[in-house]
This record gives sequence, C-alpha cells and structure tokens, in this order.
Amino acid sequence: MTHFQPVALEHASRLINHGPTVLVTSAHGSRRNIMAAAWSMPVEFTPPRIAIVIDKSTFTRELIMNSGMFGICIPGAALIDLCYAVGSTSGRDLDKFARYRIDPVKGPVLGLPLVEAGCAAWLECRLIREPHTEEAYDTCFGEVVAAAADRRIFENGYWQVDDSNQALHTIHHLGAGKFVRASGMVQAKPL
Amino acid sequence: MTHFQPVALEHASRLINHGPTVLVTSAHGSRRNIMAAAWSMPVEFTPPRIAIVIDKSTFTRELIMNSGMFGICIPGAALIDLCYAVGSTSGRDLDKFARYRIDPVKGPVLGLPLVEAGCAAWLECRLIREPHTEEAYDTCFGEVVAAAADRRIFENGYWQVDDSNQALHTIHHLGAGKFVRASGMVQAKPL
Repeated sequence: MTHFQPVALEHASRLINHGPTVLVTSAHGSRRNIMAAAWSMPVEFTPPRIAIVIDKSTFTRELIMNSGMFGICIPGAALIDLCYAVGSTSGRDLDKFARYRIDPVKGPVLGLPLVEAGCAAWLECRLIREPHTEEAYDTCFGEVVAAAADRRIFENGYWQVDDSNQALHTIHHLGAGKFVRASGMVQAKPL
Repeated sequence: MTHFQPVALEHASRLINHGPTVLVTSAHGSRRNIMAAAWSMPVEFTPPRIAIVIDKSTFTRELIMNSGMFGICIPGAALIDLCYAVGSTSGRDLDKFARYRIDPVKGPVLGLPLVEAGCAAWLECRLIREPHTEEAYDTCFGEVVAAAADRRIFENGYWQVDDSNQALHTIHHLGAGKFVRASGMVQAKPL
C-alpha cells in the first residue's frame, strides 16, 4: 500500500528547498535511466520551476534532451547505498532499474518512471530548453507538472521530520560517498 | 582565535554540495548587506562555479549587480535564529550587520564582508554575468575565487560531521522558519 499522495504544485518547491540529494529518472522510447544528482535547487515558487546540473556526458542528459522531461525522486536515508550505486554506474549499457531491482511507478502527467519505495517524494518535470546554460554550466531548467510525497513525512505542504520517520529523512551528499541526514527539525525564533 | 583556514579552490564545491541554507553577503561603495538564501548549488568543480537564486526585488541583488561579486557564508546550527532574521528583513533601510551585531571579516581576494563566528565556511565569488537567467529565473552564476572553513568541521577537503561539532552542523531550510540540521554522517556501502 502506498503512502504517497499528491502535493499541490504551489508547494512543490518545498520538496527540494532544503537541498537533498536526488535521484533523476528519465525515459525515451524503450530506454530509461536513473542516476543520482546532488546539484539541484528550486528557482521559482509559482509556476514551480527548478534547476538541476546534469553532466553532458551522461546517458540521462541524452534521454532528457530527447524526451524533454525528467523525474526527480527524493530518497530517504534507507536508500543511501542505492543512491550511491546508481550515481556511480552508467545506464548506457545497463538498465539500472532492473540491475538494482527498482520497481518504478508511472508518473501521472508525463508517464516518467518514478521511485516511491524508500523515497520521501517525487516530482515530474518538463524541461525548459535553455541551450546556453545547458552547454556552459550543464544546468537544466524544468517546470514541475506533478508532485507527490509520502504522507508519513510531508503532508498539507509541510515536512514533518521526527524520530518516527527516520528511514525517510532526506540525505545530503558531502562527496566521496559520505552522506549526512536531515534531522533535528527546529522552528527559528524571532530575534 | 579563528579556527578558519583556507580551502583549496578545487574543494570549494564540497562546501555547498549537500545543499545547506546560506548567508549571502554583498557590498558596494559604502553599503553592505547580508541575507539568507536556501536556493544555491555548485555547477562545476574546476573552475569552481556556483548558481544561486537572488530575487530581483532584493537590496542584495542590487549590490551584487553593481559590484559584480558576492559572498556565501555557511551558518552552523547555532545561527538558525540569526539566519531566519536576516532572511526576513530588508537591508535597504537598515545595516543588518549592525542591527544583529554581526562582525564580519574581510575577504582576502574581493574584500567582501564574510561571517566566521558561528559559520562553518565561506566562499568569495565573482559574478559571471548571465543577463537572461538573471532576468528569467533570478539565477545568478558565480566563480569562487577564495574559500575557507572552520577546521573543526572541514579539513583537507572533507567534512567531518560528528557529535563534537554540533553547533557547526549545517542547516537546511524546509520553509516557514523550520530548519533541519545535517547530522548522522555515514559512508555509503557498495551494493
């Protein structure tokens, strides 16, 4: 049984506001792929738009440019090893979904493969073509057209990070396979 | 006594690789400012380049466009309230450094005001003009020309996040003044 439920588009930026490392999914024709990416950020609330760095040498970049779309899945702490594995191998000669036994769901708007098991949330994005920044900085822009989150950690537009949902705490790559986990949620007090 | 020491430029991207919320500092002529920004990311390792979203309505944006430079300081958990405060007020009619008793150091290359007390690291960046993305997405690109970190949490190019340095753990804004802290460092294992 899935714990995922739709996230209103005006709340979609909150899913990556805090800088988690993400899984990027893509598909074109009969090919599909999944990789890890540490470099992404929202750029606008409404319409919800994001930027993500996808190296031009990757198979993912090829699929995104050909299909005009990509998925972003936000892995929880239980997926640290998987995240590093799909970030360290190329999908050009290998279906990483099959290799790592990832069983994706189908995105409601674009039909992208999206990961729910072990993830806190996902976003389906339509690529906004920006040839200069794609070329100069490997920076791709996208508009979020659908989003969903596991209600055990994100509901009514808000994250609720606590001891009850540690396996879904987002992960943040420091480099070289070392990750930290988001925890210790606190509300800022007025100064 | 400062615990800060220079970070080699080829390691600078690691300072923001994991998506911390940052303080953006700026100065032009006799004016200076500091604001919080949740939306930033590296875009290239060498030369070290980053992208950051700075709304065009902000005083910071005005100072950056006029001076061609900006600083990024990475607050530790002890600065959560300060980070939220400088992110919720404008510096147009107020020197936020004075208001919040922040005593900046002077950047070695660009002379920018930079915060060390309570921060884990800082970067001095030269703006790379990209009028289209600045206008369309408020996304500004910069090249890192100097960086330093508190050796109690980042040394020899690596983060060391543990119970001994909790006040310097990076903070990650979820929205509406709620933050999570980076902790529980773990090394991914091969699958």
